[in-house]
Amino acid sequence: MKSKQFTPDEQAVLEDIMRSRRDVRGNRFTQQGVDSGVVDKILQSALYAPSVGYSQPWQFVVIRDHAIKQQVVDNFNLENEHARTQFSGVKEETYSKLKLDGILEAPVNIAVFYNQSNAPVLGQTSMPEVGEYSVVCAVQNMWLMARALNVGLGWVSILNPEKIKQTLNVPNQHKLVAYLCLGYVDEFYERPELELLKWEKAKSKDSVIHYEEFSQAE
Amino acid sequence: MKSKQFTPDEQAVLEDIMRSRRDVRGNRFTQQGVDSGVVDKILQSALYAPSVGYSQPWQFVVIRDHAIKQQVVDNFNLENEHARTQFSGVKEETYSKLKLDGILEAPVNIAVFYNQSNAPVLGQTSMPEVGEYSVVCAVQNMWLMARALNVGLGWVSILNPEKIKQTLNVPNQHKLVAYLCLGYVDEFYERPELELLKWEKAKSKDSVIHYEEFSQAE
Repeated sequence: MKSKQFTPDEQAVLEDIMRSRRDVRGNRFTQQGVDSGVVDKILQSALYAPSVGYSQPWQFVVIRDHAIKQQVVDNFNLENEHARTQFSGVKEETYSKLKLDGILEAPVNIAVFYNQSNAPVLGQTSMPEVGEYSVVCAVQNMWLMARALNVGLGWVSILNPEKIKQTLNVPNQHKLVAYLCLGYVDEFYERPELELLKWEKAKSKDSVIHYEEFSQAE
Repeated sequence: MKSKQFTPDEQAVLEDIMRSRRDVRGNRFTQQGVDSGVVDKILQSALYAPSVGYSQPWQFVVIRDHAIKQQVVDNFNLENEHARTQFSGVKEETYSKLKLDGILEAPVNIAVFYNQSNAPVLGQTSMPEVGEYSVVCAVQNMWLMARALNVGLGWVSILNPEKIKQTLNVPNQHKLVAYLCLGYVDEFYERPELELLKWEKAKSKDSVIHYEEFSQAE
């Protein structure tokens, strides 16, 4: 075959990066600045992502300005107050202690939007949501590339998306897909933080993988 | 820092895998079988994906059975007939010539579902769609791992999702996120196929990246 063939060593590097990737919050970011060259590499990885009908329906806003971040934090704090009330008992207690964002602590924030096409898109005619899914693929590429560059990334989803669009002056036909906080960290945890805190357990392979048809073993 | 630090060489491997990844259709798959060990590695990479509130809301159905694939192809053909009529002029002509699936040609198909939680999920209270987005992150991990293993992967989205659930006997609260076709290929194209066919152009970096707020330069 004429295309590039990757080796077992290269496969192992990819697996290592995937396994080491973590969702990073404000309690782990350090003061160290992130060069624009590093941010460019992370954005470049987004542009390698697949997109339905090659529509490339993504838009990125890179934020370093403190006043803008402050507006986003205010948005987060309001949403998080509402969110907290939806948990009860031990979970409510744990929830209150969790640091769930890193908006101000991270030197760089990146808001990621889906730009809906007015024309029909190849491959998007039966399942319209695959347009947004393309943007999520770009986010996962960024997350892996950030980890490879030893930069922590946290995805903040406890936000009012319409207010984010107002804050960043984003046109109406766009939809917020992700709000990312990036910075160097003192440590990447060995396991997901919510597993270490016993918020959720790791699911077994058997409970999520089925053959030929869905089996209801659970 | 005590966590693993990746090197520039390892960053380059990741970038190379991302850049070489392609959406593969039935015209490129070879007859070569895919071992279950290889399928397991691809599924394992999905389980390394991030998920909102560590909810791991994914379910995978691995399909090798011809009769099941035939039902999925029938579903695709019907949807694709409807889809074709949405394009006109040169695009309609090109659309008719495109091979848009590899369901029967690929030795392995994997249907990927989002399993909606009945309880509130941490991080999913303001933007409910982030549950599905977690599953898409898992799909992107699979796509990259498949490419690293020199296995082609194509995402088929021209399907009636409810009929797929019937075909695979999937419970109601699940949502189809992706239907994937996997197999070895004779070639990975240098550039996305829809770019080579001049269906869409590559977007410039400047047209999708903004700083501090959205700029409407287009």
